[in-house]
Amino acid sequence: MRTLNPYTPGEQLNDKRYIKLNTNENPYPPSPNVMETIKDNVNDMLRLYPDPESCELVEALAKAHNVSKDCVFVSNGSDELLAFAFNAFFANKKVAFPEITYSFYPVYCNLYNAEAVKIPMKKDYAIDLEQLTMQACGKVIANPNAPTGELLSNEYLCGLLESDPNNLVLVDEAYLDFAQQESMARYVLDYKNLLVVRTFSKSYSLAGMRIGYAIGSPSLIVALNTIKNCFNSYPLDRLAQAAGVAAIKDQSYYDQINDQVKTTRNRVKAQLEQLGCKVLPSESNFLFVSFTGYSSKDIYTKFREKGILIRQFSYIPRYVRISIGLDSDMDTLVQLTKEIMQK
Amino acid sequence: MRTLNPYTPGEQLNDKRYIKLNTNENPYPPSPNVMETIKDNVNDMLRLYPDPESCELVEALAKAHNVSKDCVFVSNGSDELLAFAFNAFFANKKVAFPEITYSFYPVYCNLYNAEAVKIPMKKDYAIDLEQLTMQACGKVIANPNAPTGELLSNEYLCGLLESDPNNLVLVDEAYLDFAQQESMARYVLDYKNLLVVRTFSKSYSLAGMRIGYAIGSPSLIVALNTIKNCFNSYPLDRLAQAAGVAAIKDQSYYDQINDQVKTTRNRVKAQLEQLGCKVLPSESNFLFVSFTGYSSKDIYTKFREKGILIRQFSYIPRYVRISIGLDSDMDTLVQLTKEIMQK
Repeated sequence: MRTLNPYTPGEQLNDKRYIKLNTNENPYPPSPNVMETIKDNVNDMLRLYPDPESCELVEALAKAHNVSKDCVFVSNGSDELLAFAFNAFFANKKVAFPEITYSFYPVYCNLYNAEAVKIPMKKDYAIDLEQLTMQACGKVIANPNAPTGELLSNEYLCGLLESDPNNLVLVDEAYLDFAQQESMARYVLDYKNLLVVRTFSKSYSLAGMRIGYAIGSPSLIVALNTIKNCFNSYPLDRLAQAAGVAAIKDQSYYDQINDQVKTTRNRVKAQLEQLGCKVLPSESNFLFVSFTGYSSKDIYTKFREKGILIRQFSYIPRYVRISIGLDSDMDTLVQLTKEIMQK
Repeated sequence: MRTLNPYTPGEQLNDKRYIKLNTNENPYPPSPNVMETIKDNVNDMLRLYPDPESCELVEALAKAHNVSKDCVFVSNGSDELLAFAFNAFFANKKVAFPEITYSFYPVYCNLYNAEAVKIPMKKDYAIDLEQLTMQACGKVIANPNAPTGELLSNEYLCGLLESDPNNLVLVDEAYLDFAQQESMARYVLDYKNLLVVRTFSKSYSLAGMRIGYAIGSPSLIVALNTIKNCFNSYPLDRLAQAAGVAAIKDQSYYDQINDQVKTTRNRVKAQLEQLGCKVLPSESNFLFVSFTGYSSKDIYTKFREKGILIRQFSYIPRYVRISIGLDSDMDTLVQLTKEIMQK
């Protein structure tokens, strides 16, 4: 117990005075059909356990990704899924990932006694592709990467899978729906060592409902189900299962809001750069920004004082992560940046 | 992975032709206020992460049990909580429990490399109190026990806590609200080695929403939170948190339906006994019944053929577990028993 080092999530303040750009939530609401479906399921059936296998949701996801049902696994948010995957595939082994990435990965290493091989970033927080390819061990890649926003090509990832076919490559696509690239899920039958992890929290505007899933070859899914069934028979409640199914059916709504997020992201990136900020290329729903002349801590404090919450990491001295919000909120952020940078 | 041996939950058929008496769900619906509250929370806020600490629910539970907030921990169902507790307190150690009890306990031992010390049952599946007290190691006691229904007195449990103060006693009170006995939660500040685990799945009719909780001294709660924060920042979704708070506020509704369950249980027990069944004393929402002359497997099959699902365990040759349902459904069960026993 004493050696465990928990993950710290972004602040979740119930204080509506803040513009909340710190935990990469979607600024747009879930689709009206999703909300209607949840309400329809609030009935006497809540007294009964949910389907332990979430069959309807698994089927809907299989159809959406054009894979068979035995290639799909669902979970209570993708963090639970990552925990199961580290437990199933990396416990007591080596696992490599970029040094700056989703900070829950080293926490899972710690929890399941995996040895974390942290690949140092290159200039401007770029992932060192050569170093990553050289590792003969499991690998975890957030694609796009967080908090930097960098997108690796599927071509690179396929090469990585081929270079070390006996070790798992876990591709965490939490933010992929904000990129111009298809999911690696299409390759799961080509590469038995590929596990793709996805979530409804970002692009489906359902962070509040906790739904994650994985696509992988059947043997990987069997392993995840073994861990799950040793842990909790019913990780997804009835309403989360129903919400997930409804969300998949309403893809056109989600395409529309996510296109808007991308448009806003590109616009704000250009504006911040014009004001003298350094902004890394981002294919996600956030920007990784350095405010020249200010430390990340100073900038976090300045924004917070003015009612905007952004994400600052103690181990990143210059850059902060800013989630893409509503256009009006981003205008406020740009205006504040102007005041700061022109002082 | 190869050594893991998952838990098998009772069948969850979505087939309404069956009278479902196999997974100890409450036959009565959640309170109307709970359902109203859930619906009120189906709104744009679902795009945001839930409160990672479930503060409102923790506060409501603390108030209900008259303890401070730092004595309360909430989880995605009580199975997740049991998993965290086995991980935090029993990993790589010995833990004792009755041989016939909730069959997830040995699964957790397996998952977290704890050595299970299974105390053989006495005559008629009674827990061997003396043997349990003699164990100098962690202990897990479902009270009332499942699937037998036996209730141990709080006096005995206090003695157990005092006899081995350096080892944790986890009291799983999933079914206690169906007994005439107060929760052990009132003793958590007297005994630093007591952890009480409870659930909304049975007495609060919310199996479909996945809400569990623990009451224990603050140092135990800190340990559970450390594991939780290494695993999943947000295990309870927004609607589950809101449902839990609303359920606690509507205690009088739940007292009423659970009184009805107890009345039905006592009535059905007497009727089955009159028909020649052996029924163990039960302080829970199920009965543990032997149909004289029939194996548990035969009885399971006979009931299933007639549209009634009950729970049969491969390792229990004579007895089956029957959940208490609506009076009308129990009448059907009694009638069928009559036909079987009078053949």
